[in-house]
Amino acid sequence: MSKMLVIGSVALDTVITPVGTSEDILGGSATYFSISASFFTPLNLVATVGMDFPDCHRSLIKGFGVNIKGLETKKGKTFRWTGSYKEDMNCAKTLDTQLNVFADFRPLIPKECKNSKYIFLANIDPDLQLHILKCFGDNKFVGCDSMNYWIQNKPCALKKLVKKGTFVFLNDAEAKLFSGESNIIKAGRYLLSLGPRFAIIKRGEYGAILFAKDKVLCLTTAYPLENVCDPTGAGDTFAGGFMGYLAKMNRVNDQVVQKALLYGSVMASFAVEDFGVNRFLKLKKQDIEKRYNRFKKLTVV
Amino acid sequence: MSKMLVIGSVALDTVITPVGTSEDILGGSATYFSISASFFTPLNLVATVGMDFPDCHRSLIKGFGVNIKGLETKKGKTFRWTGSYKEDMNCAKTLDTQLNVFADFRPLIPKECKNSKYIFLANIDPDLQLHILKCFGDNKFVGCDSMNYWIQNKPCALKKLVKKGTFVFLNDAEAKLFSGESNIIKAGRYLLSLGPRFAIIKRGEYGAILFAKDKVLCLTTAYPLENVCDPTGAGDTFAGGFMGYLAKMNRVNDQVVQKALLYGSVMASFAVEDFGVNRFLKLKKQDIEKRYNRFKKLTVV
Repeated sequence: MSKMLVIGSVALDTVITPVGTSEDILGGSATYFSISASFFTPLNLVATVGMDFPDCHRSLIKGFGVNIKGLETKKGKTFRWTGSYKEDMNCAKTLDTQLNVFADFRPLIPKECKNSKYIFLANIDPDLQLHILKCFGDNKFVGCDSMNYWIQNKPCALKKLVKKGTFVFLNDAEAKLFSGESNIIKAGRYLLSLGPRFAIIKRGEYGAILFAKDKVLCLTTAYPLENVCDPTGAGDTFAGGFMGYLAKMNRVNDQVVQKALLYGSVMASFAVEDFGVNRFLKLKKQDIEKRYNRFKKLTVV
Repeated sequence: MSKMLVIGSVALDTVITPVGTSEDILGGSATYFSISASFFTPLNLVATVGMDFPDCHRSLIKGFGVNIKGLETKKGKTFRWTGSYKEDMNCAKTLDTQLNVFADFRPLIPKECKNSKYIFLANIDPDLQLHILKCFGDNKFVGCDSMNYWIQNKPCALKKLVKKGTFVFLNDAEAKLFSGESNIIKAGRYLLSLGPRFAIIKRGEYGAILFAKDKVLCLTTAYPLENVCDPTGAGDTFAGGFMGYLAKMNRVNDQVVQKALLYGSVMASFAVEDFGVNRFLKLKKQDIEKRYNRFKKLTVV
């Protein structure tokens, strides 16, 4: 039985980048997270889709060893997102969002998932994230993600959530907005002050910073890439690699978490090399190890 | 006799940052470079100032063990620069530039400096940088810096210069402009294609990338700082630490250059902690080693 669970979105995305356009492709936070984590550990996915969700996408996710018993099909349409990226690829511009069945997402946690040890609450309403957390026992490590919308509209619920989480994942803009700090180190310190054991600030092509015990525990650049095709899902892919590695090691301590930061970066570097989750269709475990080792060598010591 | 030489500007700066304003303080590329490098090696400085240049600044530079015999005093005023920084501190806005005596800078290389082995040509007219290079023999390592103005107005001269240099130092915006590439790895590859042995792209608070042999040799984040006071001179300070370390080791190979990248980052992290060169007045060599070791630990391995 798998120890890991992700609760989030499964979506149909339309992505426009300088490289090209890709329509109605498989996307969503839970999709990216679970496919990334699947290279390290089996896991369960809880999400909802509409009647229009293609069977081939369902098979694709399943093909990675992800248990999709918790992927509910509801009357209506699947969550759809359309976004575009300019030359620098650092920031998506949302052109259209249709929540559809995701608007009423009230995840049912399958019984066999209730003693999951590694849980990722992808970006949804923090009140809902808090509600979901009540389903689980004490022996768990929880990662939470969020976004500007919830920081601005539900800051109190988000603070409660972050307090209960083991890991909080935010990007630099979100961390600065949430903390009210323009300095990223102060922003990280603020996140830790809310109570989680670790805070991870993602900086896109510039890497990530891991905070623990009131200070920077470690930091990394991003793996250098000459060709970036589609940055969509890089953050969830990062979290999937990070938490997937922890579940694989089945230990959470400073040293393991440092390595997890590097594995998360490596997985994100693969994600952006093709549209959607395409890059993972031809990815092998040895490719991950190879890039991990190359990445280590590139990092100054 | 010192093996190292820097040719650049010595200036009086007025700097406005969110932390405060500092008027008519000692600045200039050669100042920052030489003070930073002086922690690793003795060196000579060649620059020009006006009659208004305070003796105390002269003594201050000299106090770091920098030979200022090549600091010429000319009739007229010293080069003055006024700039301001907003909250994010990543980019200076130039409010005023008065070249004064620096407009006719035709450096005279003192005889005893002509067999310098480590030479840094700070940002000046690339034709002048090329002219200066003719003064030296073959057994030398040359670092060159430049800026957007020369990239736009004298690209051919700059290409010739980069070809003759051992190291080219540019920031990310400059490297992208010079190469016409929006991807930083492609920009670095372009710089190498011009002929230098190493290319270093500086990314401010995000670190630096070192390119060699047609690829990324290593990359680093910046040392994480909670309080940034004044980013002026960080790039020249970085180059000073980088080349100073090379001169100290008196070796240029991949391994030494990788370490130099880290020492450059450490020196830059000190520079920005106070206005102008103030931080260096109380800096000790053991502070550098301490931060270098802490930095290494923070970098994921």
